[in-house]
Amino acid sequence: MRISGIIIGALFFLFSSACQSAAEEGSKKIYGTAALMVVVEREDGRVAVFDSVNHELIGRIAGLGNLRHASMVFSRDARFAFVAARDGTISKIDLLGMELAARKKAGESSIGIAISRDNRYIMVCNYEPGGAVVMDSATLEVVKEIPAEFTLPDGSKSRARTVGPLDTADNLMIFALMEGNAVWVVDMRQEGFPAIRKFEDVGDTPYDQLITPDGRHYMVGLLNSDWMGLLDTWKLDGMKRIDVRERRGAIKKDGEKVPLHHIPHLESWAIAGRLAFVPAFAEKRVIVYETDGWTVVKSIPVSGTPLFVVARPGGREIWVDNVGEPGSNEERLIEVIDVERLEVKKTIDAGKGAIHPQFTPKGEAVYISIQGEDRIAVYDADTYALIKDFPAKRPSGIFSSDRASKFGL
Amino acid sequence: MRISGIIIGALFFLFSSACQSAAEEGSKKIYGTAALMVVVEREDGRVAVFDSVNHELIGRIAGLGNLRHASMVFSRDARFAFVAARDGTISKIDLLGMELAARKKAGESSIGIAISRDNRYIMVCNYEPGGAVVMDSATLEVVKEIPAEFTLPDGSKSRARTVGPLDTADNLMIFALMEGNAVWVVDMRQEGFPAIRKFEDVGDTPYDQLITPDGRHYMVGLLNSDWMGLLDTWKLDGMKRIDVRERRGAIKKDGEKVPLHHIPHLESWAIAGRLAFVPAFAEKRVIVYETDGWTVVKSIPVSGTPLFVVARPGGREIWVDNVGEPGSNEERLIEVIDVERLEVKKTIDAGKGAIHPQFTPKGEAVYISIQGEDRIAVYDADTYALIKDFPAKRPSGIFSSDRASKFGL
Repeated sequence: MRISGIIIGALFFLFSSACQSAAEEGSKKIYGTAALMVVVEREDGRVAVFDSVNHELIGRIAGLGNLRHASMVFSRDARFAFVAARDGTISKIDLLGMELAARKKAGESSIGIAISRDNRYIMVCNYEPGGAVVMDSATLEVVKEIPAEFTLPDGSKSRARTVGPLDTADNLMIFALMEGNAVWVVDMRQEGFPAIRKFEDVGDTPYDQLITPDGRHYMVGLLNSDWMGLLDTWKLDGMKRIDVRERRGAIKKDGEKVPLHHIPHLESWAIAGRLAFVPAFAEKRVIVYETDGWTVVKSIPVSGTPLFVVARPGGREIWVDNVGEPGSNEERLIEVIDVERLEVKKTIDAGKGAIHPQFTPKGEAVYISIQGEDRIAVYDADTYALIKDFPAKRPSGIFSSDRASKFGL
Repeated sequence: MRISGIIIGALFFLFSSACQSAAEEGSKKIYGTAALMVVVEREDGRVAVFDSVNHELIGRIAGLGNLRHASMVFSRDARFAFVAARDGTISKIDLLGMELAARKKAGESSIGIAISRDNRYIMVCNYEPGGAVVMDSATLEVVKEIPAEFTLPDGSKSRARTVGPLDTADNLMIFALMEGNAVWVVDMRQEGFPAIRKFEDVGDTPYDQLITPDGRHYMVGLLNSDWMGLLDTWKLDGMKRIDVRERRGAIKKDGEKVPLHHIPHLESWAIAGRLAFVPAFAEKRVIVYETDGWTVVKSIPVSGTPLFVVARPGGREIWVDNVGEPGSNEERLIEVIDVERLEVKKTIDAGKGAIHPQFTPKGEAVYISIQGEDRIAVYDADTYALIKDFPAKRPSGIFSSDRASKFGL
């Protein structure tokens, strides 16, 4: 009995230690999900997850496919993120368990992802094959394919590459057909997800879209037209045209023409109060529109060609990254525009290839990917001082989990 | 050895069962915190916490003091809620562990609570003793008392009852002195939390305040003046006066005069696009102002005297509760105003004492306290159909955790 007593004692110790360490591991990982910052490390097909209140790395989740031009949305409770990889891999990642929860293919080449207002479905826009697919958000099973066919000049049908989608307050999903020059509106509340509106001839080659922060208006950018499409999602009564010749000046040989390193995304447009801050095409300036009549208020010169133009929560500042020749000075610079004065008030030398500023939910700090230096920089948005630096492999897109409660993000 | 073998086997079974059930309990409770709905059950001094995606009760947390007129704010990651009870008890509740994390007294009678932009401090406004206190958000230790003294006619000093506070994008806290007719602005970034501005003679008896959804403007309501105060928090250059004689018509003997059952809170004003929907004082109507010049666009008749006037996310509808004589028909009714047409489009008979509609973050559902029937009702905001009902003891205030990333809420 002495031996067995020792064995029992030893077992007791082992089991209770095992229990305790499981509990400790559990308690170490307790955090709310409303202020997480998820950073894409594109070369490694993984994301890094940060606590953006205390600026601490929580962990990484790998195996997400080719994350060049990855996009991401959050479940309504921000427990999960859904990542669309360029190779058509859709990953559902668990931001509490820090692991992959599901992974499926949506196509061979995917470009965008959105979650339905009711949290039940994911929609993915594909380049290859064209069209869009609807997946169950629990399992990522494909529940519907929308081929998005358009008619070729010879009368035959072909699937269009689609861009988007975006979700609206009425639980619609909106996407555009690049080849079809059309915008489709799908009702996610109805059985079979019918396209309840198809707007034709919206302009030449839609390439990107946004929903205004108030959730009401949809806008689509067109590669080869001098306008943008504007749709009132409350009325769905037709696509208005907004003149963007000013924005496209460089292409039309006005202004200082510089190489177009990237096509600025519409999602990156900043709308602060009644002003929209829009990156010019292939020019070193940010154009300010007033959003009543979409007339130009001012052009603000910046150091490079702006890619992401982001409003600070509260709307007092606009932060702009600059792309340029690799190794140039301008690709190091983040510029801060004062919204009252409509001029650059601060230029931050953030490092080689600084892109994609993303604010914490209340805007006191900014996460920036310093792509050319394999690190993520965190800045104090009041003092413009570097607070913290994290090593990261070719970081690119940064997504704050407060997007979970925003339309079109 | 056989007996000890059995004992060892039994112990093994017991320990592994214990471990497993701990793990199961853990896994059962895994959820993100970005879409929780916290409902105050005022008679029982407790709150009920709901998953607002699946409309499921997660649990209850009790022992929170006198919750008549309780207010609540969330930590930045929405893991914690801070509840100010009327008796001065401040509770920090853990929405993941579903337990009380800390409890301290801020005074003998507290009226409002806010969390600093950096998540580090809680400020509480007190009626008794007057003034405000700053607490450490980790421990609830009081780190600063702000007596908020004003000068009496005889030259002596007294502590004013304060209302507020509200947090701004610049990490300021703003509160008003009821007796002092003043508004103070405290800088939460500076050592010692100095009041950096004190606006005097703002009007007779401030009673409530709000921050506009864009985070820029602060407004203060005045019990005995014909105007409201408006402060540009970017400039802090003085309190402008907004004429509210239209709103106060009933008190001035115009319009249909009915009993003022409750003073409508300013926080409950709905601002949708460029329109503000404001409950009239002691009248059965909602007044619509345009927020450029603060002129009246329209008065919309409703069934009772409106208390909470809430914009649906996306801004397409305004939901209004009605107070009235206990047992009256009007206190059962929730009215839905169409923002485009500026008229009531739907009246819902929700039950006896239906108050405090609160939308889920993307607005597809509404939680309503049916006070006179001891239940919480959940409505589909598209169809106006009752989705679900939960028993609850005298439910009152309802707070969605997406407030964690909003200024002044």
